[in-house]
Amino acid sequence: MRKLRCNATFSGMSILSEIGEHEAIRRILPALGKDPELRVGAGDDCAVCRLPGGGLDQVFTTDPIIEQVHFRSEESPERVGNKAVGRVLSDIAAMGGRPQWILVNVVAPPALEFQYLERIYTGMTRLCEQFGTLIIGGDMAKGSSLELHVFGTGLLPENSALLRSGAKAGDSILVTGPLGGSFESGRHLDFTPRVAEGCFLRESGLVHAMMDISDGLATDLRHILAQSGVGAALEGAAIPKTGTLEQALFDGEDFELLLTSADPDRLQSKWQEQFGTSLPVIGKITAEPGTLKLDGRILKAKAFEHFAGD
Amino acid sequence: MRKLRCNATFSGMSILSEIGEHEAIRRILPALGKDPELRVGAGDDCAVCRLPGGGLDQVFTTDPIIEQVHFRSEESPERVGNKAVGRVLSDIAAMGGRPQWILVNVVAPPALEFQYLERIYTGMTRLCEQFGTLIIGGDMAKGSSLELHVFGTGLLPENSALLRSGAKAGDSILVTGPLGGSFESGRHLDFTPRVAEGCFLRESGLVHAMMDISDGLATDLRHILAQSGVGAALEGAAIPKTGTLEQALFDGEDFELLLTSADPDRLQSKWQEQFGTSLPVIGKITAEPGTLKLDGRILKAKAFEHFAGD
Repeated sequence: MRKLRCNATFSGMSILSEIGEHEAIRRILPALGKDPELRVGAGDDCAVCRLPGGGLDQVFTTDPIIEQVHFRSEESPERVGNKAVGRVLSDIAAMGGRPQWILVNVVAPPALEFQYLERIYTGMTRLCEQFGTLIIGGDMAKGSSLELHVFGTGLLPENSALLRSGAKAGDSILVTGPLGGSFESGRHLDFTPRVAEGCFLRESGLVHAMMDISDGLATDLRHILAQSGVGAALEGAAIPKTGTLEQALFDGEDFELLLTSADPDRLQSKWQEQFGTSLPVIGKITAEPGTLKLDGRILKAKAFEHFAGD
Repeated sequence: MRKLRCNATFSGMSILSEIGEHEAIRRILPALGKDPELRVGAGDDCAVCRLPGGGLDQVFTTDPIIEQVHFRSEESPERVGNKAVGRVLSDIAAMGGRPQWILVNVVAPPALEFQYLERIYTGMTRLCEQFGTLIIGGDMAKGSSLELHVFGTGLLPENSALLRSGAKAGDSILVTGPLGGSFESGRHLDFTPRVAEGCFLRESGLVHAMMDISDGLATDLRHILAQSGVGAALEGAAIPKTGTLEQALFDGEDFELLLTSADPDRLQSKWQEQFGTSLPVIGKITAEPGTLKLDGRILKAKAFEHFAGD
């Protein structure tokens, strides 16, 4: 990445594929500004804003899903709709928020069958209903491939959002479900966002940091490490998997919650009581900033990036 | 349109270009559902939701802007950014709202120069600053052409939003500035959203219905007529124009506010005092539902529609 950053086109300017998505976002962030009502800006699963009236914070997030990037053209439209809204609900869950409102921008080719679009809305509204939220607006425009841009808001008690920056050395690392093989199994389309789980974990008062796993355990955990100024040591055998360890670490699109806690025993027992399932500990937060180890050895980065590699 | 609705592809299903954007949205709306906290759903400039705590409503809107649809590729990126955020602020202004938060999804080709993207953000943040709002999040993904999907929220006192459905027979129709030729002049890119004006008009207590002009005076006024169950009679000579009458009626992208009032004299005098400019009356709301007349004659529809005509 460092080398690529120094590359330049003949005009002396870098193009997005040389910079990559994460670096492009990192460079733009400082220009966005601050506000006393904005508690957490871009860089977490959601932005967190103080709501007028007091007592509540509101979270905001947005996710695009694009044909041939996030789903294949032959996919069932209900499942595409489920994924589009599910990703946003998963971001809200990752803060411990209760979903509130959804808006959707559709970009579609003029030759798209209307029935296909209707079935996408069926998938979206079905998931919205399940979680007590509603699509309240949006817009439509034509484009060369099908895209859904989903915007969502959620609510939670003020100052209670679970952030990526809260992990502390000595915390245990836990995960709400098995990881890996989400694309092969189709789970990336019909997953259930961990909304009830996210609220429960926030209310437990036992969680220091939380996020959802979209880019893969290894990649996403690095965000917690970077934002908390800590390191981590994972135990390969302890990670719940649906395939190989490699898949569990790097596949992504699991949409399980990744969290840290200083009191994992009490959290696990509360969880067992509430959901009747286990909440496995998969490693520890360490005091070595930015160092991610797997079974005692340094784990190298390997991540999907939009733009990069084109 | 009625005829096109009956068209079908060989597979027995209609495609979007046969149905058109507005009809596609109309067909999807009933599936979206209702909620007691949702005061106004899709179909106005913004959705309006009751904010917990009482006393305030929150408005939500989203607008895509797409290369070669809403702007030309050779356009200055600062102006593209201005338009992207300006359209959303204009929707918020059209309810009488005070802008609150902005999120932006970017879809970009991997070969886009990073500096071009940075300059788009310069245009966006400059306008945000001017209106006391902030970009608090968003996402990036790759695609074949450049798109910005801007989501915005705003605040206003509860039950005070100015809707398209409030016009009453006998109201005067007014407009906040000259119309037409927005594309030729480039005003569609560097317009100033009428945020201060929208708040002032709401606070005046003298406005029955309001919206912003994005698709052209004739097309947008029809939305007020349909949602208010009224008709209108325009006076061609009274419409403030930057070009021909035809342009003022149909060009669109003016981003001026279109409103109706039962007390235009008092409103005009307050306006003159506040802004030092005129607020011209351009016609009257009539009791003939759906009938739009210009200088005594029926005015035919002619509108830009995404998908249609492809």
